[in-house]
Amino acid sequence: MTPTITAFEQSPDRGQGMARDMRVRWALEEVGQVYDVRLVSFKAMKEAAHLALQPFGQIPTYEEGDLALFETGAIVLHIADRNTGLLPADANAWSRAITWMFAALNTLEPPILELEQAPYLDGDKPWHSGRMRMLEDRVRFRLDQLSSRLGNADWLEGAFSAGDLLMATVLRRLEGSGLLEEYPNLSAYVARAMARPAYRRAFDAQLAVFTAASTGAE
Amino acid sequence: MTPTITAFEQSPDRGQGMARDMRVRWALEEVGQVYDVRLVSFKAMKEAAHLALQPFGQIPTYEEGDLALFETGAIVLHIADRNTGLLPADANAWSRAITWMFAALNTLEPPILELEQAPYLDGDKPWHSGRMRMLEDRVRFRLDQLSSRLGNADWLEGAFSAGDLLMATVLRRLEGSGLLEEYPNLSAYVARAMARPAYRRAFDAQLAVFTAASTGAE
Repeated sequence: MTPTITAFEQSPDRGQGMARDMRVRWALEEVGQVYDVRLVSFKAMKEAAHLALQPFGQIPTYEEGDLALFETGAIVLHIADRNTGLLPADANAWSRAITWMFAALNTLEPPILELEQAPYLDGDKPWHSGRMRMLEDRVRFRLDQLSSRLGNADWLEGAFSAGDLLMATVLRRLEGSGLLEEYPNLSAYVARAMARPAYRRAFDAQLAVFTAASTGAE
Repeated sequence: MTPTITAFEQSPDRGQGMARDMRVRWALEEVGQVYDVRLVSFKAMKEAAHLALQPFGQIPTYEEGDLALFETGAIVLHIADRNTGLLPADANAWSRAITWMFAALNTLEPPILELEQAPYLDGDKPWHSGRMRMLEDRVRFRLDQLSSRLGNADWLEGAFSAGDLLMATVLRRLEGSGLLEEYPNLSAYVARAMARPAYRRAFDAQLAVFTAASTGAE
């Protein structure tokens, strides 16, 4: 059964692949699962039909027959668990790979997202500039630890897994901040992830939405 | 095989059960799994032996034979997946319950933790008081949505699951803020979770560490 995901009708990042549908597209490409996309406007995201699928008014959602999921972590885990290629078959290795999924979303992403959103949340406030260094240092604290753990390895734990997929998309949020460049092994890790053919296919697919919308608007 | 978890040697919250080992203790109690606890000092948490288990220098960790896990989401999922009582057997319901685990840790917890930590992070900064209202409103935004979704139901999705376990522990972080009390159904939800016998056993076990430590220090 072909799953349907939702994505932004108008890409807030102009197709740079930062929207969270990118994670799900990438996971689907890694396991070779074709999918449909339903585009949702910012207005529709706050309406009852979408809130029934996603109570927090966000994208992406994932529909597959009677099943409807939200939260990219849960969707990627679902895809990874029902296919081969994103989670190891060995039961203990399965749990280890999932540990990195939660580490990406619960330990790395929150301080990174806080730094990324600061200009939007309080960029006009008198406290903004004073906070930025603190937020950067908080991200560095986690990047130090992640960099130490990764060392010279290609991936966080053996073969590429759903944990790497989520971690790479989280670290990509630092693009433009200069922080990732302070950690050559983490920069190389993200580049390695982005060079995967499945990543490229997913990236091109989300970019095509934006390109088509731009053309249509002109 | 009896798993071993780690917990704070000295409870920063004086045994109120806010430390994250509470989540793992509760999950283990729900499935009826006995466990051992190894207490770790703040100093030891930053040393190589602990960092090998938990690269971000936190507690809890979970060791079971050759398997070592960190991240409470991953540990609770592991416990839930290998036992009965915390995740439904039906495959689609399993994925739905896991959606709520990620919602708790990736959508609710970050803004709640940011609010909770603000007094420690920038309580001495000139911008602090100005930020608090914004942080509270950001939490309210998510509580509004969660409250709407929960409605009059006992649990987020059918029977009590690992998703409820994590959500309740995340919402408990709001104690003392007055925010949870603005949502009677969410307050009742947390009270319902905390009334579970497994929760009480887990709470008493983590409190006993603090009580014993206090007694020893006097």
